[in-house]
Amino acid sequence: MTRVVALTPNPAWDVTYRVDRLLPGESLRVRSVVARAGGKGVNVARVVRALGSASVAVCPLGGPLAGPFADDLDADGQPAAVVPVAGAVRQSVAVVPAEAGAEDGGHPTVLNEPGPALDDAEWAALVAACVAQVGTAPAAVVATVSGSLPPGTTRERVVGLVGALRAAGARVHVDVSGPGLVWAAEAGADLVKPNRSELVEATGVDDPARAAGELLRRGARAVVVTDGERGLTAYEAGPDGPVMPAVVGRARLAAPVAGNPTGAGDAAMAALAVDPDQPWAHRLALAAATSAAAVLQPVAGAVDRADVDRLLTHVVTEPES
Amino acid sequence: MTRVVALTPNPAWDVTYRVDRLLPGESLRVRSVVARAGGKGVNVARVVRALGSASVAVCPLGGPLAGPFADDLDADGQPAAVVPVAGAVRQSVAVVPAEAGAEDGGHPTVLNEPGPALDDAEWAALVAACVAQVGTAPAAVVATVSGSLPPGTTRERVVGLVGALRAAGARVHVDVSGPGLVWAAEAGADLVKPNRSELVEATGVDDPARAAGELLRRGARAVVVTDGERGLTAYEAGPDGPVMPAVVGRARLAAPVAGNPTGAGDAAMAALAVDPDQPWAHRLALAAATSAAAVLQPVAGAVDRADVDRLLTHVVTEPES
Repeated sequence: MTRVVALTPNPAWDVTYRVDRLLPGESLRVRSVVARAGGKGVNVARVVRALGSASVAVCPLGGPLAGPFADDLDADGQPAAVVPVAGAVRQSVAVVPAEAGAEDGGHPTVLNEPGPALDDAEWAALVAACVAQVGTAPAAVVATVSGSLPPGTTRERVVGLVGALRAAGARVHVDVSGPGLVWAAEAGADLVKPNRSELVEATGVDDPARAAGELLRRGARAVVVTDGERGLTAYEAGPDGPVMPAVVGRARLAAPVAGNPTGAGDAAMAALAVDPDQPWAHRLALAAATSAAAVLQPVAGAVDRADVDRLLTHVVTEPES
Repeated sequence: MTRVVALTPNPAWDVTYRVDRLLPGESLRVRSVVARAGGKGVNVARVVRALGSASVAVCPLGGPLAGPFADDLDADGQPAAVVPVAGAVRQSVAVVPAEAGAEDGGHPTVLNEPGPALDDAEWAALVAACVAQVGTAPAAVVATVSGSLPPGTTRERVVGLVGALRAAGARVHVDVSGPGLVWAAEAGADLVKPNRSELVEATGVDDPARAAGELLRRGARAVVVTDGERGLTAYEAGPDGPVMPAVVGRARLAAPVAGNPTGAGDAAMAALAVDPDQPWAHRLALAAATSAAAVLQPVAGAVDRADVDRLLTHVVTEPES
């Protein structure tokens, strides 16, 4: 069985505030506070386990909230490899109004702190921790890299990370935003998974197929683009090379589900990692169902396996799975 | 010289987020994060020192942010008496947009967590810590009680606190909101300092003089009402008793200053505490000038003594000071 080493280079202590309404310019009473260890890679690690596979969450952690963060993973039974760093783990504050206002469209307002920069020694220790986790796995390993990169992360660091993980024998799946996505492609990542707006932002190309082709041309071996309820599309280099990429699979739910979209992309990343030797139709169907199952959960980083199995029967794929 | 024992029953780790704009329903990037030890009593303690008097901040502190909170007071040279408690110190998150939106009127949006409840032993330890600080002072002591009360704080606890401090020889000044204001009056507080809206909320009486009379009738020895740029008014029981209270002093700035009103009330509390044997006109003039000096500062809990001295020459008082 595949084991997943899920790196979160810039984890966040996720704080959720429930308020009556979010009124800009007012002093508001927070009705309830819930906090947990978060970040996109932590979500991936949790969903991998919910799907029945093994995962380890790798996180740089420092500051006063490092202890509660590690304790929360531990309380959840989530194996973790923590790399101590000097900078304080950031907070991400989601404000959820009891009554949806006309101004927020029913979505939470999320305040994302930038997080700490890592110095060279800290980054090297983080890469080494990931490689060590890959090395101790008895079977096939997928290493995932998810979320924002710490401030100041260079191309050299991202290329070095992907290269070290591939050299250690892992397949490397990357879901980072901004230039990091392009750098990961250039380092030969096995799979990059932007959503449609991240794909456009990273490549500067509006057409998804042409933008995916650009990432393949840079060196990515596969590109999976998520596009909300329109589902997932996987691209690989076509017979004439990456300029005209081949759509190797598509999957979407026959009817979309309503709920909390935060973490849906991380659930797709988890599903794509757990069984990487299956055909694309199978992998994309599982990703569509797992992503929809995540939408049904009130928090990111969770799915109910029964929801995944039920939703799998409602997935439309090309080619048929 | 008077020494001030400044209690914050429900302190807060004050976090300030600068954002481009606060758009409800969006996921926002925080541009900068500044955090410091806060709460209204901490502000009082800091301003007392800026005015040249001695203060000690008394705070119950627990959870992962207790260490950074105490460290911040220490780095600021603020003497403190920390009472360890099980519950985690709350956060108060202020969101400051770079460009004022039409929707916020240029004010920060503040998210106030409720804070932890204290059990009976923790409350008793907090009262004992305040009394111990009163007892070690060589001269006259004013004990201030400021800000919100921990969830579940009963009338019995507030009456017991005020009584214990008075029994220890302190004058007790109280600036708490909600029913705690009435309980403090009933316990015979030497001074209660609501702002006008808190006064109306606590007494259910719209007219400020009649509402102040109600607090005097309950047992407060003096009531000082702050009303923004309209200044401060002090009431004591009149010759016919508290039903027709006497205005014993008023003070306001001849022309209001523009700036950050957060902490202006705490600055007034500090000024009212530092020289309690002076005539009302003198105390209220200092309170008006200190409050205005606080408005000129970007953060709560700070004044520049030079601003106070300059603004004092622009204060209008009745009777003339």
